Amino acid sequence: MAELGQVKVGVLGGTGPQGRGLALRWAKAGISVILGSRSADRAEEAAGELRALAGVEHVSGLDNKATATEADVVLVAVPWEGHADLLQSLKQELANKIVIDCVNPLGFDKQGPFALSVAEGSAAQQAEQALPDSRVTAAFHHVSAVVLADLSIAEVDIDVLVLGDDREATDIVRALADAIPGMRGIYGGRLRNAHQVEALTANLIAVNRRYKAHAGLRITDV
Amino acid sequence: MAELGQVKVGVLGGTGPQGRGLALRWAKAGISVILGSRSADRAEEAAGELRALAGVEHVSGLDNKATATEADVVLVAVPWEGHADLLQSLKQELANKIVIDCVNPLGFDKQGPFALSVAEGSAAQQAEQALPDSRVTAAFHHVSAVVLADLSIAEVDIDVLVLGDDREATDIVRALADAIPGMRGIYGGRLRNAHQVEALTANLIAVNRRYKAHAGLRITDV
Repeated sequence: MAELGQVKVGVLGGTGPQGRGLALRWAKAGISVILGSRSADRAEEAAGELRALAGVEHVSGLDNKATATEADVVLVAVPWEGHADLLQSLKQELANKIVIDCVNPLGFDKQGPFALSVAEGSAAQQAEQALPDSRVTAAFHHVSAVVLADLSIAEVDIDVLVLGDDREATDIVRALADAIPGMRGIYGGRLRNAHQVEALTANLIAVNRRYKAHAGLRITDV
Repeated sequence: MAELGQVKVGVLGGTGPQGRGLALRWAKAGISVILGSRSADRAEEAAGELRALAGVEHVSGLDNKATATEADVVLVAVPWEGHADLLQSLKQELANKIVIDCVNPLGFDKQGPFALSVAEGSAAQQAEQALPDSRVTAAFHHVSAVVLADLSIAEVDIDVLVLGDDREATDIVRALADAIPGMRGIYGGRLRNAHQVEALTANLIAVNRRYKAHAGLRITDV
């Protein structure tokens, strides 16, 4: 397994529920985190809240551009709308860095959630096209923001499928999943197979509605 | 949970590994099974093998058309090539019956498995279009044929996502999953969300290759 060492994780969209929840868990696990947001002030305000919640000092808040510049590994946790524009605007700052896309392009109508069709194939492949000089991976699609935010849940009962074509990059992302108690990072295939992992979130939302749950996946026999 | 009662399950493609494996497990669970194949002789030969393996009498073999006629619930476990043609040819026989599609439209190249694009959206939706008078569901996509065939594995460690728009039909299909020791049937959303469940099989094959496993899914918090 890859060594995380002194890796600094940046979270684009770090004031949203998914990014904030993962940042909280990483901070508690001893990993330095930078929350990124459109507004540096809002980011620093959220960072202050996470420092208090996690009881640590190693959380800061910056605007998205500065976050991309300062971080070694960058989680993309922004809304699907604006995903392409944001990444294109950060192409230089994210060059040569490991990028983790966790975005789920979903629509909702009267019948519930459904997967949106994405021209590039998936959000992760859209990121790959926007960031040709970055090491793009896809992971953390199915983690419940509610569970992440609830620190009374000490162990997060979920496996994280980690996709990508760069072995070292997927190993580091798996290590970031393993760093959160209860969670495991499992290699889940090449980036071209990201669509179905993103889209499966629609099914997990259907499970949640039927069973009043915060459903996640475990991979058996691994 | 739905009562299975004296339901008779037909398996189109019952001499293939997936159909045969599920038939074996259902037969052992006391459920009457008809193996369907293009050739009635091959179907009856395979049925004889399953009767011996399961130590039961309630397995028979017929051609696909007779199987569709005789069965109450029909599992479609045929290769993707020929899927549409076979179902269109059985439209009358399958009218008003519960149909379970477990077909995964996948391609393979040097980089491994990938999801095929399906005009109707998914194999299950193709079945729905071919069988407008049937109650089409989708389930059993991720069950390892190797595990099913190995009766030394008493408990099959997997959850089966059951998709469909007909509540009673999905309840009966869930009961068919629950009937196999270790397995659970979990409602997984409407049929329009079947594509990603089918396509996820590509990811599980990638997991299997990396970890030398027969990977399956469990749904947490349910």
